[in-house]
Amino acid sequence: MMAPVAINLGVQLHVLAEAADVSATTAATFTVGDYTDYDTLAAFAAGVDVVTFDHEHVPTEHLRRLADAGVTLAPGPDALVYAQDKLAMRRKMAELNLPQPDWREVTSIEELVAAGEAIGFPVVLKTPRGGYDGKGVWILDSAAQARQTQAWFNGDHPALLVEAKVDFRSELSAQIARSTTGETRTYPVVETIQTDGVADIVKAPAPELDDTTAQAARAAAETIANGVGVTGMLAVELFHTPDTAAGFMINELAMRPHNTGHWTQDGALTSQFEQHLRAVLGLPLGATDPVVDYTVMKNYLGAENHDLYGAFPLAMQKYPQAKIHAYGKSVRPGRKIGHVNVLATDGDLDAALAAAIDAAEIIRHGTTDY
Amino acid sequence: MMAPVAINLGVQLHVLAEAADVSATTAATFTVGDYTDYDTLAAFAAGVDVVTFDHEHVPTEHLRRLADAGVTLAPGPDALVYAQDKLAMRRKMAELNLPQPDWREVTSIEELVAAGEAIGFPVVLKTPRGGYDGKGVWILDSAAQARQTQAWFNGDHPALLVEAKVDFRSELSAQIARSTTGETRTYPVVETIQTDGVADIVKAPAPELDDTTAQAARAAAETIANGVGVTGMLAVELFHTPDTAAGFMINELAMRPHNTGHWTQDGALTSQFEQHLRAVLGLPLGATDPVVDYTVMKNYLGAENHDLYGAFPLAMQKYPQAKIHAYGKSVRPGRKIGHVNVLATDGDLDAALAAAIDAAEIIRHGTTDY
Repeated sequence: MMAPVAINLGVQLHVLAEAADVSATTAATFTVGDYTDYDTLAAFAAGVDVVTFDHEHVPTEHLRRLADAGVTLAPGPDALVYAQDKLAMRRKMAELNLPQPDWREVTSIEELVAAGEAIGFPVVLKTPRGGYDGKGVWILDSAAQARQTQAWFNGDHPALLVEAKVDFRSELSAQIARSTTGETRTYPVVETIQTDGVADIVKAPAPELDDTTAQAARAAAETIANGVGVTGMLAVELFHTPDTAAGFMINELAMRPHNTGHWTQDGALTSQFEQHLRAVLGLPLGATDPVVDYTVMKNYLGAENHDLYGAFPLAMQKYPQAKIHAYGKSVRPGRKIGHVNVLATDGDLDAALAAAIDAAEIIRHGTTDY
Repeated sequence: MMAPVAINLGVQLHVLAEAADVSATTAATFTVGDYTDYDTLAAFAAGVDVVTFDHEHVPTEHLRRLADAGVTLAPGPDALVYAQDKLAMRRKMAELNLPQPDWREVTSIEELVAAGEAIGFPVVLKTPRGGYDGKGVWILDSAAQARQTQAWFNGDHPALLVEAKVDFRSELSAQIARSTTGETRTYPVVETIQTDGVADIVKAPAPELDDTTAQAARAAAETIANGVGVTGMLAVELFHTPDTAAGFMINELAMRPHNTGHWTQDGALTSQFEQHLRAVLGLPLGATDPVVDYTVMKNYLGAENHDLYGAFPLAMQKYPQAKIHAYGKSVRPGRKIGHVNVLATDGDLDAALAAAIDAAEIIRHGTTDY
């Protein structure tokens, strides 16, 4: 999704892809290689001016070695680690005095049970690394259940994160761009509706969020961006907790264009993809104003219908205002393979939401009669 | 500029380019070949589902032969001829009873002088084919000047078009898409400010156009689209003539995404490029609503500064709201090499216009102090 804006700005993209048939290869020149192999990374980096990321899974030690060898990484490993390692992130949020759920680092069942009892069940057990779209997360309702987690301690993660299961009103995302020059620009805070651990619907801006909390969340994003020294896009996923002093708690960080920012492709003056390119290239950042009162983003996931392009006309026919974004990925059940943006040009959020959901479901199911 | 929307919709573009270094080759797979050579065209057409155009210069006789051979052309030669041949266009507009300047077909100096005297000098002499951005046009102030045009009759155009030089208030463009299914959608009528025969500034929608005339112009675009059977985008360039019965006269036609529609990339729900793709593929057409009250487009032309990318940061710094669209073309004085769109998110057209002009001039000159 960065390719279209790269074309506009005359920037050449080169992708290190895990296989020749992944979607990013359809839109950019590419090299096939293993991002966990240092030599592959180094050879790739030698051919470009700036290396950036569309996931957090490149090993931190490789990134540090590349940085030491003079490769320009954006974000750099000292920032990216807070999106890679949830324990490092929790420690950093504490250091920055930002509101977050009560949490502990645990290395054994005994520590986990004690932490759960101190925090109060239910708690959430997380692997510090490698989680994605709800994977690597286990909600524990009781000490008894906590005692069944031994396998998680036997794996690659000797230390795990356990934190309070927050009773939130809604989930939010605060996005910010920070340039190599230190310039920052925040986007309006959005509401995200998660389904099975995947951001499924985004309402931009968050319709039921008061201005004070929204401004505080944007300020928190700025504190984090500067505090960790990120370059590029940072998404701060938040819980909206009106009963707490701050009104929100920090959930997770992502340092790249993020699912919760796809609405900006059509609904903001500068899309998160253009903004990320500008930030990592040290170009001045673009305005983040929404172009209409509300924009809705709805993902469509793989389901029984594999003929997405055959379904597009049905959705287009019913919703001429829907903006379809196809990722060029093969269909697998539950896989994010595209999204639909609908702008509420008439200010009617409910109508835009209904249109986005129906259009996505039509594509997913291959029929208007799903 | 069609490549970004093609990526979104999962459509593969293949370009027949006149050389490997033209801008379209940076964004799509391409074949290098001569579009005036029938065999080249036929070989290219064999590899794609639908052939469309980004200029009008492919010989009509080749297109007819391709159509007879079963190639899907969008638009087809029977429509495209009205964008290729201004005499055919004038005859067709007369047949459709649409308002246009007084005009004659002339084959000699004597006929030209007689036509000029009948119409009333000044008149405009045009080659029916091959004109572009003000080329192939000669304004004749008097019979004496008309007698100096012999060279134009000695060239490739035995018959020329002469028409009244219209005393217009402004120039307008009415765009419409017509699908292979016959579905049509018109865009808001825009005002275009021409400089040296090139559309230089577009204000969308036309700020000083009354609703009645705007609706009549959209209706005329629909009459033309259906009357000539176009598929894809049609731009109807118009003179705004408030003192005439219709309030406008038809100037020229273009059957492709057009400079006067570049504002739609950022300012309308569906860009003209996406709409063209939808129309030529027979997909349902997208909504054409503007997303804000006014959008301004300003071209930037080649000038003394050849380091465009070096100038982008200056324009971005001063105008974070400006949307820069670079064509990837080499700089030549007077050549259209990109444009800037500015959305008046606050409804202030004058401020958007000033920003677009200044941003384009900064890029053109490579300095904010031009």
